[in-house]
Amino acid sequence: MSKNIFRKQLATFKSYVPGKPIEEVKREYGLDEIQKLASNENQFGPSPLAIEAIREEIDKINFYPEATAVDLVKDLASYLNVKPENVVVGNGGEGLIWVIAMTFLNEGDEILAADPSFDIYKISGDLMGAKTIKIPFVHKKFDFKSFVSNITENTKLIYVCSPNNPTGNIASKEEMDYLLANIPDDVVLILDEAYYEFAEEFDEYPSENIKLIASRPNTIILRSFSKIYGIAGVRLGYVVTSEALAAEMNKVRQTLGVNRLAQVGARAALKDEAYKKYAVEENRKAIDALEGYFASKGFDYFKSYSNFVWANINTHSKAVFEELQKRGIIIRPGFLWGWDNWIRVNTGTDRQMKLFIEKLEEVLNN
Amino acid sequence: MSKNIFRKQLATFKSYVPGKPIEEVKREYGLDEIQKLASNENQFGPSPLAIEAIREEIDKINFYPEATAVDLVKDLASYLNVKPENVVVGNGGEGLIWVIAMTFLNEGDEILAADPSFDIYKISGDLMGAKTIKIPFVHKKFDFKSFVSNITENTKLIYVCSPNNPTGNIASKEEMDYLLANIPDDVVLILDEAYYEFAEEFDEYPSENIKLIASRPNTIILRSFSKIYGIAGVRLGYVVTSEALAAEMNKVRQTLGVNRLAQVGARAALKDEAYKKYAVEENRKAIDALEGYFASKGFDYFKSYSNFVWANINTHSKAVFEELQKRGIIIRPGFLWGWDNWIRVNTGTDRQMKLFIEKLEEVLNN
Repeated sequence: MSKNIFRKQLATFKSYVPGKPIEEVKREYGLDEIQKLASNENQFGPSPLAIEAIREEIDKINFYPEATAVDLVKDLASYLNVKPENVVVGNGGEGLIWVIAMTFLNEGDEILAADPSFDIYKISGDLMGAKTIKIPFVHKKFDFKSFVSNITENTKLIYVCSPNNPTGNIASKEEMDYLLANIPDDVVLILDEAYYEFAEEFDEYPSENIKLIASRPNTIILRSFSKIYGIAGVRLGYVVTSEALAAEMNKVRQTLGVNRLAQVGARAALKDEAYKKYAVEENRKAIDALEGYFASKGFDYFKSYSNFVWANINTHSKAVFEELQKRGIIIRPGFLWGWDNWIRVNTGTDRQMKLFIEKLEEVLNN
Repeated sequence: MSKNIFRKQLATFKSYVPGKPIEEVKREYGLDEIQKLASNENQFGPSPLAIEAIREEIDKINFYPEATAVDLVKDLASYLNVKPENVVVGNGGEGLIWVIAMTFLNEGDEILAADPSFDIYKISGDLMGAKTIKIPFVHKKFDFKSFVSNITENTKLIYVCSPNNPTGNIASKEEMDYLLANIPDDVVLILDEAYYEFAEEFDEYPSENIKLIASRPNTIILRSFSKIYGIAGVRLGYVVTSEALAAEMNKVRQTLGVNRLAQVGARAALKDEAYKKYAVEENRKAIDALEGYFASKGFDYFKSYSNFVWANINTHSKAVFEELQKRGIIIRPGFLWGWDNWIRVNTGTDRQMKLFIEKLEEVLNN
């Protein structure tokens, strides 16, 4: 037998399985219109200022992006009240999670993450030969006691996604205090705050985690322009961390990884306070509609601090996913995470929320 | 001492060092205008059809890119007369080189590459713990005899960049035949053809390497939309390879790594035959001007099959780089590759070529 040409970790590697392209679903079911409520996209966007800035930049796309994204990094630093040396930008949040894996992980290292949470934490760790220990939520809360008791000398990374994808709940101030008091300084704590801006309004949400980087340098805050700012299509994520960690991550990230249009789009979006306010308000209305519906049905759900709701519809989610899809509604079925009767549905316009509820009723009453 | 939190390979890792941002150079030297002839960008672009397609897509950037880039992959497959299963798209050629490193390399593996060649081959290998053996050009040609004699049981990847960056020369049909006859089947041969379209017109250039994937499945052809199509700013590269290799690379690449605007821009650019023809012609004129100038000075240079010329100016390139920069011209100095007296300068408009020659004369006569 000839030698294995592939990286050995690929022998057991399972990658992320994306949903079908919308056009394919349309053709398959003969649909004119599809409401995709499956990817936690911002249905109220994009930010108008971002659109304008990108439009003005298009003529320059024969030139490479500025490698250090110097202007965007300065703007972010100023907005967040940190130094440019604390900021790393990447090709979406996903891109930065891969950079984190490549900056910190060797074979045999361990990652702790909640279950269910964002798949890419484990997938990126798997490729680097690290082992991910998944810790189930208990009573709809992070089980930080179990996180702490699972720490070993091999633990390199702890991921806390708050608000969490796909459940929408948060790690509260009190819970964060417990975690911070009980984990070693030399474990890198990654707080994935992709949905930060939807949670900011809640008192119980710790909205100043960025300040931790001064007292606890091995902390990384991950944020995204894909959610509140509505520019997921151009890919732009960033992290805020200590200078030491940022320096290493900047070495590892692709030199030209952040495209030119994302750089100008993000700079403009960051200044678009009016759009941000509007998107938060519209999102809140939709969350209220979704939660109101699930409550009225007696369905269990996680209180959402995000732009989606995770609910138990008492029916296998695979069947419901398929029946909804035939009717032009795409949601994310919970069986993908092993939560067979749960679904994740994101917020949208009044019409989208009404359509979703109408079609789900149709499916459940069939 | 506390444990090392970083991936152990970072202890000796040297990343790519990008040039200064143009705006910074302008401020530093009080310049109004800068001609950047340092990054092999297409000065005649972008493709007008690409611009138009991107303009029409901007309103949809609140939605994630289609993960499998299904339409772009189909278009590329049809254009190249291969199957969609043979194509992998990525966040620029650079992004795909990182995907290659992550698909094939474990600690202790070896890479062969020419010296000088594109830095990211070695950089991405270094991070994965692989060792890169660099094989100098001999008489301005790839030393494939030395490539062959350097193959060990640990050799995983052979990179051949043709036309080569930064030297602009090619591996001819005859040279490729020798290499193919003398390397084991289980070594992955990567032909980086980022500058393919500039070389196509030459008889001695092997323009049908893509056909190799049928007879030699462990072959990868790498191409780019950053050069001939002039859309470097949105980042889009692709590889053509056997189905087996493409399947593994598609598992490893970022799910949402190729942004929405790059996908539509590339599809449109691929159809823009008029622009491609124009860019090839303008490039040829500029190459002739550059080579004519270097010849008239008696400077040694590599005959260019690309959109840049690599020439020996008989003076240390660091000093020349700095003096040219003060005068508003940025080139890439050869000392970065250890070729102290050489420079790489890319093609541009008549005016840009005249300015470059004028300012270089000024510097050399000083």
